[in-house]
Amino acid sequence: MALIVQKFGGTSVGNPDRIKNVAARVARYQADGHRVVVVVSAMSGVTDNLIKLAKEIMPLPSEREMDVLLATGEQTTIALTAMALHAIGLKAMSLTGAQAGILTDGVHTKAKIQNITPKRIHHLLDDGQVVIVAGFQGETPDGQITTLGRGGSDLTAIALAASLKADLCQIYTDVDGVYTADPRIVPTARKLAEISYDEMLELASLGAKVMQSRSVEFAKKFGVVFEVRSSLNDNPGTIVKEETRSMEDVVIRGVSLDKNQAKVTLVRVPDQPGVAARIFKALGDATINVDMIVQNVSHGSGKPATDISFTVEKADLLKAQKVIEGLRPSVGFSEVIAAEKIGKLSIVGVGMKSHSGVAGKMFDVLAQEGVNIEMISTSEIKISVVIDLAKGEAAMKAVHGAFLGT
Amino acid sequence: MALIVQKFGGTSVGNPDRIKNVAARVARYQADGHRVVVVVSAMSGVTDNLIKLAKEIMPLPSEREMDVLLATGEQTTIALTAMALHAIGLKAMSLTGAQAGILTDGVHTKAKIQNITPKRIHHLLDDGQVVIVAGFQGETPDGQITTLGRGGSDLTAIALAASLKADLCQIYTDVDGVYTADPRIVPTARKLAEISYDEMLELASLGAKVMQSRSVEFAKKFGVVFEVRSSLNDNPGTIVKEETRSMEDVVIRGVSLDKNQAKVTLVRVPDQPGVAARIFKALGDATINVDMIVQNVSHGSGKPATDISFTVEKADLLKAQKVIEGLRPSVGFSEVIAAEKIGKLSIVGVGMKSHSGVAGKMFDVLAQEGVNIEMISTSEIKISVVIDLAKGEAAMKAVHGAFLGT
Repeated sequence: MALIVQKFGGTSVGNPDRIKNVAARVARYQADGHRVVVVVSAMSGVTDNLIKLAKEIMPLPSEREMDVLLATGEQTTIALTAMALHAIGLKAMSLTGAQAGILTDGVHTKAKIQNITPKRIHHLLDDGQVVIVAGFQGETPDGQITTLGRGGSDLTAIALAASLKADLCQIYTDVDGVYTADPRIVPTARKLAEISYDEMLELASLGAKVMQSRSVEFAKKFGVVFEVRSSLNDNPGTIVKEETRSMEDVVIRGVSLDKNQAKVTLVRVPDQPGVAARIFKALGDATINVDMIVQNVSHGSGKPATDISFTVEKADLLKAQKVIEGLRPSVGFSEVIAAEKIGKLSIVGVGMKSHSGVAGKMFDVLAQEGVNIEMISTSEIKISVVIDLAKGEAAMKAVHGAFLGT
Repeated sequence: MALIVQKFGGTSVGNPDRIKNVAARVARYQADGHRVVVVVSAMSGVTDNLIKLAKEIMPLPSEREMDVLLATGEQTTIALTAMALHAIGLKAMSLTGAQAGILTDGVHTKAKIQNITPKRIHHLLDDGQVVIVAGFQGETPDGQITTLGRGGSDLTAIALAASLKADLCQIYTDVDGVYTADPRIVPTARKLAEISYDEMLELASLGAKVMQSRSVEFAKKFGVVFEVRSSLNDNPGTIVKEETRSMEDVVIRGVSLDKNQAKVTLVRVPDQPGVAARIFKALGDATINVDMIVQNVSHGSGKPATDISFTVEKADLLKAQKVIEGLRPSVGFSEVIAAEKIGKLSIVGVGMKSHSGVAGKMFDVLAQEGVNIEMISTSEIKISVVIDLAKGEAAMKAVHGAFLGT
């Protein structure tokens, strides 16, 4: 008899029939003798509607009140899910984040979980109940409603699994698991049976939109093994866990292509100490998230100068250009070049650590495809290159074929 | 500087524009130096939609989970109302029923308020905030979400006014106040400047749908003076308060017509002790609410027998007939007659206590109109008659004219 935490996202509970499907799945696990804690998101569309209502009243609503508002979405789902379990004869009780003992800090709309008191959940499980917990939400020690921000329901599930010492944590979503590449682009992509936290983190930050990084980081920190799987079928999904020796036998776990980046190049920046700091501090102050940064010596005449390139999300490009233009008088550079039609192609795998020549092989494959590399950035388990967006998908297929088979 | 509790019902907060109107009204009171606590209902339609969702999952959902579900309606409104106040520059904070310190018993879907701890509200008022409290909901001492049932938001407002020792409690609704009769039926009906709790209670139970009886009872018990007024204009409404000597100068406060009753008559019931008890206990056990009861001697031949008539809500008529048929073998009566096309016409006024001849005058007016009286029931401040539904409105106009002017 295992204790299982099962998390269902917004599309999995998107209407009464889907909620009934969730209940049927939970019932099968309970019939097998397991204790089940269910974490649910708001029904798909509900959160967006609430945000729309708020914006009709005020363009920038108070974050405290947004939390009071948005928390109703998950509260609606827990009640309906409990009813669906009752309808098929199970004992079930819903709990809001606060009722489930999820204490957070007071940073509204992106609160951090500080502590979970799982006493009430244990008590209900002992009583034979299925416990349904509202994802995405918690309460501060002085009784304010908070929400956890994007990916918050995954975080609730993983934090609950850690706190309850659950045997298994299942993240049900609308994809089958984690793939070696996006199957819509690379038809030969395969579902992975397992992946390490670090690989999952790299993929999450590289545009593979299965999960937010913070949930994976939390799972890694507390050693929560979890499975990403589909709520539409019974196929096994992908197990995410600490890296094992055997994982290193696979050089590359996956390939990703992020089409959502833009590149900014500052040409002939004076080669002086503190210049880069000034640039990236200004971008940070404007809450612009900079991803890759590359600096190279510029071979012009005159004073020593350098070219600095960096990438940001496309949505932040205009804002970033404004910030940079504002620095022109104080920093002094000859030109700013922005490029939107770029793609960031990455390969990820813990096996890189023990295999040499991985970068060389990737660059060779790209050269054979006639793809020019504009920027390179590497970590211990990842190599990313910025290339022409138009050649992105072909390059991805070629790299996937070379490392993971066609 | 007064402390005012203002309650706005579902239509008054039915969309973002109306919520902005509520905020503008609150702002005017605050600008006049008053401290304001706002109680809001769910936006109109929201509660019905939630009930519909629940019924799609299960015909008879758990009452505990219904409370978790329905409480989201008011929680949505408090957040939006707080935002609307922020948008016009006021300090405002929303509180759920639990956060506002509203403790109830554990009778889900119709909980009773047991205690209010207004510390948090006082603290926020001291800080210059407008406090917005979710109506209709509370929390049990062990942290279960409860709702107060029909008219629950009015109850929240009146209970808060009592607990906060508010100077004024305003119930904003879509009517201008309490009228001498329904103006849609009696065009000469007038808005009352004031009315006693008891008169309001009689009118509430007689089909004048301004407020539920339990809120008025609560106000009477705790001496909360409140005003029923419109959220669509600035006209003064009707003050509801303890009866004063001057109120008795008016013989009749109002006339009401309840078209929603049905009549059941048991013919030739054996005239034995305990028979009536058996009949009405059986109806009570089936949770059928019996309104008027009239018993008369039956002048037939044979054993002593009596006719018993009673009225129930039309929706309960079939159920009542079934219960009565089930009693036929044990009680023994010759016939059951059901009549749906009846109306209950009532006159209400504390002045009746000190004026004689009121009933005679009412019956005389009805006789002149050619209206036959089928049943009569009286209390200290009310006279009700059951008449033919087809003659109901004409009879109402005639009685209103005789007592309250045309």
